[in-house]
Amino acid sequence: MKIVIPLYDNFTALDVIGPYEVLGKLPGARTVFAGAERRVYKSDTPTLGIAAEMAFAEIDSADVLLVGGTGHIAQVTANPPLIEFVKRIHPTTTWTTSVCTGALALAAAGVLDGVEAVTHWGAMDVLGRLGAIPVHERVVVRGKIVTGAGVSAGIDMALTLAAKIAGEAFARALQLALEYDPQPPFDAGSPAKAGPELVKIVAELMAPAMAAPPTP
Amino acid sequence: MKIVIPLYDNFTALDVIGPYEVLGKLPGARTVFAGAERRVYKSDTPTLGIAAEMAFAEIDSADVLLVGGTGHIAQVTANPPLIEFVKRIHPTTTWTTSVCTGALALAAAGVLDGVEAVTHWGAMDVLGRLGAIPVHERVVVRGKIVTGAGVSAGIDMALTLAAKIAGEAFARALQLALEYDPQPPFDAGSPAKAGPELVKIVAELMAPAMAAPPTP
Repeated sequence: MKIVIPLYDNFTALDVIGPYEVLGKLPGARTVFAGAERRVYKSDTPTLGIAAEMAFAEIDSADVLLVGGTGHIAQVTANPPLIEFVKRIHPTTTWTTSVCTGALALAAAGVLDGVEAVTHWGAMDVLGRLGAIPVHERVVVRGKIVTGAGVSAGIDMALTLAAKIAGEAFARALQLALEYDPQPPFDAGSPAKAGPELVKIVAELMAPAMAAPPTP
Repeated sequence: MKIVIPLYDNFTALDVIGPYEVLGKLPGARTVFAGAERRVYKSDTPTLGIAAEMAFAEIDSADVLLVGGTGHIAQVTANPPLIEFVKRIHPTTTWTTSVCTGALALAAAGVLDGVEAVTHWGAMDVLGRLGAIPVHERVVVRGKIVTGAGVSAGIDMALTLAAKIAGEAFARALQLALEYDPQPPFDAGSPAKAGPELVKIVAELMAPAMAAPPTP
């Protein structure tokens, strides 16, 4: 089972590492980090870099395509190599998946036209403008397309997918192995729980990156 | 604020990427991935590699030391460069922290002698044998030492620490930005919740790596 994870500049590391940690442990799984070029891509929180071991051009299919997001949404909405890669690989997949604003790359590739999907709460309107039908759920499964909400939702998305691929018993074993028994010290993980004042502060903090042009 | 994250062969990626995503966004934060040598270290789920940009020898202090774990516990209990690094840096820190079996490196360095701490559920007995007092909590704060339970607990640990460093309002903003509103599809994240049968299966799956000698 080939799990292909595209990288690009300013990707959010936890978006892809959460699901990678789950899906990479499935029986027969082989994860491939790929990029427009074979090189190290830097994440949007300095200074982590992950190496793309393969170039997009070297890949012609995937069993699972996993597109993570970024705080810099032009990196997914105005990124021709990534969008072309999604368009080309999606027809070959068993599962096409995204976390956070990775859904915007799927939408930009036409994969989500008229399809219910979720993204980071701060990008739900963009998702709708790109042709998807935004649904406010943690994980949305529609046919072979599985989308997760913001950043940390990738773990929930991946466990949901793991159960579909390898059965619920195996998914539960993975959950135990990762000791995924979340106990957040605060209850501010969604706009509804955080309240309008905090939402406004965080949306303003995120705004410059959301609006920035893509890195050349 | 310098946040130093040691890497070593067979590290568990999510152990360090969860907290990195939280702590790396604190005001003035600078994260440094470091290793015994400047090179790429491969994680314990193939095929992710993260580059250590600095060698241990180039670092003489840290504000936050964050030691992640591994399924291959000899990599933390029998790893002289890592253990010496923890011994040397711990006296300089404001916070010395661990996730998962990273606590075993702190214990092997003597940092946890007689100190209450937590690690992955499958390594609590080893933690005790190394001189710490195992405590079955998600996050344990004792003075400047903060330990988290297995793998995914790093996110809870980091949000707890973020509140101590930058205040609860800021930690809540980070939680919202990461949309950390966990909704695991199953309830099997701890031994108590998973039940003895699943615990036995997972413990047996983990056993070979737990017992393996360190990578040279």
